[in-house]
Amino acid sequence: MTPTDLTVHIERGLSDLRDLVTLPSVSAQGRMLPETAAAVRTLLEAEGFTVHEVPGDVAPVLIAEAGEGPATLLIYNHYDVQPEDPLALWDSPPFELTERDGRLYGRGASDDKGEFASRLAAVRAVKARHGGRLPLRVRWLIEGEEEVGSPSLDRVVREQAEHLHADGCWWEFGAIDPEGRPVLSLGLKGVMCLELRCRVAASDLHSSLGAVVDNPLYRLARAVTSLRDEAGRLTIPGVLDDVRASSGADRAAVAQIPGDGQAMRDTYGVTRPLAAGAGYHDRLGLMPVVNVNGWGGGYQGEGSKTVLPAEGFVKLDFRLVPDQDPAHVLELLRAHLDAQGLDDIEIVELEAHQRPARTDAAHPFVQACVAAAREAHGTEPVVQPSSGASGPMYPFQAALGVPCVAAGIGNAGGRVHAPNENILRGHFARGVAFGVALLERLAAPPA
Amino acid sequence: MTPTDLTVHIERGLSDLRDLVTLPSVSAQGRMLPETAAAVRTLLEAEGFTVHEVPGDVAPVLIAEAGEGPATLLIYNHYDVQPEDPLALWDSPPFELTERDGRLYGRGASDDKGEFASRLAAVRAVKARHGGRLPLRVRWLIEGEEEVGSPSLDRVVREQAEHLHADGCWWEFGAIDPEGRPVLSLGLKGVMCLELRCRVAASDLHSSLGAVVDNPLYRLARAVTSLRDEAGRLTIPGVLDDVRASSGADRAAVAQIPGDGQAMRDTYGVTRPLAAGAGYHDRLGLMPVVNVNGWGGGYQGEGSKTVLPAEGFVKLDFRLVPDQDPAHVLELLRAHLDAQGLDDIEIVELEAHQRPARTDAAHPFVQACVAAAREAHGTEPVVQPSSGASGPMYPFQAALGVPCVAAGIGNAGGRVHAPNENILRGHFARGVAFGVALLERLAAPPA
Repeated sequence: MTPTDLTVHIERGLSDLRDLVTLPSVSAQGRMLPETAAAVRTLLEAEGFTVHEVPGDVAPVLIAEAGEGPATLLIYNHYDVQPEDPLALWDSPPFELTERDGRLYGRGASDDKGEFASRLAAVRAVKARHGGRLPLRVRWLIEGEEEVGSPSLDRVVREQAEHLHADGCWWEFGAIDPEGRPVLSLGLKGVMCLELRCRVAASDLHSSLGAVVDNPLYRLARAVTSLRDEAGRLTIPGVLDDVRASSGADRAAVAQIPGDGQAMRDTYGVTRPLAAGAGYHDRLGLMPVVNVNGWGGGYQGEGSKTVLPAEGFVKLDFRLVPDQDPAHVLELLRAHLDAQGLDDIEIVELEAHQRPARTDAAHPFVQACVAAAREAHGTEPVVQPSSGASGPMYPFQAALGVPCVAAGIGNAGGRVHAPNENILRGHFARGVAFGVALLERLAAPPA
Repeated sequence: MTPTDLTVHIERGLSDLRDLVTLPSVSAQGRMLPETAAAVRTLLEAEGFTVHEVPGDVAPVLIAEAGEGPATLLIYNHYDVQPEDPLALWDSPPFELTERDGRLYGRGASDDKGEFASRLAAVRAVKARHGGRLPLRVRWLIEGEEEVGSPSLDRVVREQAEHLHADGCWWEFGAIDPEGRPVLSLGLKGVMCLELRCRVAASDLHSSLGAVVDNPLYRLARAVTSLRDEAGRLTIPGVLDDVRASSGADRAAVAQIPGDGQAMRDTYGVTRPLAAGAGYHDRLGLMPVVNVNGWGGGYQGEGSKTVLPAEGFVKLDFRLVPDQDPAHVLELLRAHLDAQGLDDIEIVELEAHQRPARTDAAHPFVQACVAAAREAHGTEPVVQPSSGASGPMYPFQAALGVPCVAAGIGNAGGRVHAPNENILRGHFARGVAFGVALLERLAAPPA
């Protein structure tokens, strides 16, 4: 495959991306979801995919299939995007793909329309090289609810299992690091978002009564400090019992991830790291954690107000690892609070939980992705046993039993979910090349 | 003294109160302060007081003197009031004294114009009974900055000490409990309002990074839980070293305070009391405490947001008892946070501290007040060695060495600082009677 071989497909892929970005398919606001599903369907059908639509809670799920051959690849993407606000911080219109200095800006340019368009371009290129025939079976699930927590996905995957079985699943995202190395992620943490609420009285009191009435914010602080230790390790009794021991391949992969987070710390101006050096990637990918997202209660204005607030709340997310089950962690948390006399603290589940998932680094599909990445990018890929982030991988990886690998075209300055979301033009081209290499390799594995 | 003897003075006092309530002397907003000072001055001069004005940071301080005799009584009041908002919750105009069902409503009706007017009425009554002569020396300090923390008072009391020495000080507030018993308070807790601030990064991060970056709200929770134990006792090392042992008279007084706070718990719908039964009044008056006034940071909206906030804050007030010094407690707090590795938590002082003050229950001036209350109210008064609240008593009690007793006309439903502030008409009359009894007793102590 020569670069000129791919140029036409890359340009056509960028043209598809340009069209898709014009559609503000914001799932959180229910905007243009059926229209965007229809546009995606049209693109797929033009390449010979048979597509059927399954109703989702918020937006249609598309399940497509094309090709014939010794292997089956499942691809997972989503056509919905995050809201574009704050609009004032965009340097060009969010729903108009705009190129500046080698970058392409627009909502969804990276997450996830850019990923989808680069993969469709790869399918076209492979077909072109095989006389219009796709030499493997490609199954594609494209949902429109990923940015609102994929509420229908678990159900749809179970119901449509017969159309989704595959030798491997190419996950919806991925990145190329600042040194140009592709980063493959083999897992995602689970996530459980909770709110703890405490109330000590029907109405606020004068703070002098703090001598004789307990304080809801203090009680919440007791609860929060009991969840983890100073080093960040979870301390809820029993919570680590279900953590799967890392395999040798996983540990070897983690040991080879370059860097120790210094770039991240520089980017965000971090002054209180919990880990640097050797433990950094281990914690980020393989350790369950709890994070405090927000805290509110009482007087938050200027100066002081001597009030004893009647109530307060804390928002938390737990990031879990295989084989922790959010529902079980929730039971352990309840028992832990009760055991400390904090049985009055209410636990509210804020959204559907996501279970953790991870594919072993030794799996043949992982090895195929690594080889394809090495070939397409011309450099050794970085393999993360798990990203620190979360997503709906569990239904595919655990329920269907399909190994999952995230590989894609994101970049460290890609501002995903934020104003000025972007990809590099060069990364889009490399994404197409990776797709071609992966499909060819699966269609005809080297002897 | 017969009731008819006082009726004319009570009515005149209510007329004064009506006039004073029309003046919206809101110190927090700098409204009508010199005008209200002038009105108070005119009332005092009409009774033969010589008055001089000392400039305060926000409003003039009036220092007045009248009478001649074997005793000197210092009275402390203030002519400023709290803001009237939220206006919509008032059932009658806040600056128009309005009578309904035996209660007189208006901003300042209780705190503190009602107290001042009832005391001035008592002075008039005593003069009338002594042929126009006041048979003791009455010194009166009336400030206009009490509702903004009395920023000038410490300085003014020190500078004007020669005009303020007295055998006792009648403090600006006091209450009559729901059973009709006058409540005398002999002390006030100190107060120190602080904000703790923590920042871990220059900008917010995705919460998946909570595995490798510490959380400012967790760090604040560690700080807060280290300040007190589950029972509400302060746990900062050394913080209790300066707590003065209660005298026998104080302990005896506490033991005789009726009730165990059930009325308070019912009023506020308290579900998490720290004390009930025998320990209630001991804690409320004699135990130092810390209270969390407010907590803010990160995402506080609906649902969840998986953010790791860059920063957060907690607002606290410490209520201190003799002989704790706020400045020293602040030093101990800093050292305590540092010792726990929380040296990055910034401590911000939100306003001027007030030091605790308490007069021993055995003091002769206290006994004079008790006897006068018994006589005027026809029932045994309740003596609190200290209120749970705070105020600028230290400059008088400790710096000047003048014993202080709070006795007044507030009521449990008086809504001080809130809409529909009120007094009972009957309590105003009893306040005048108490003043007459106290002045007569000081002028001519029983053999």
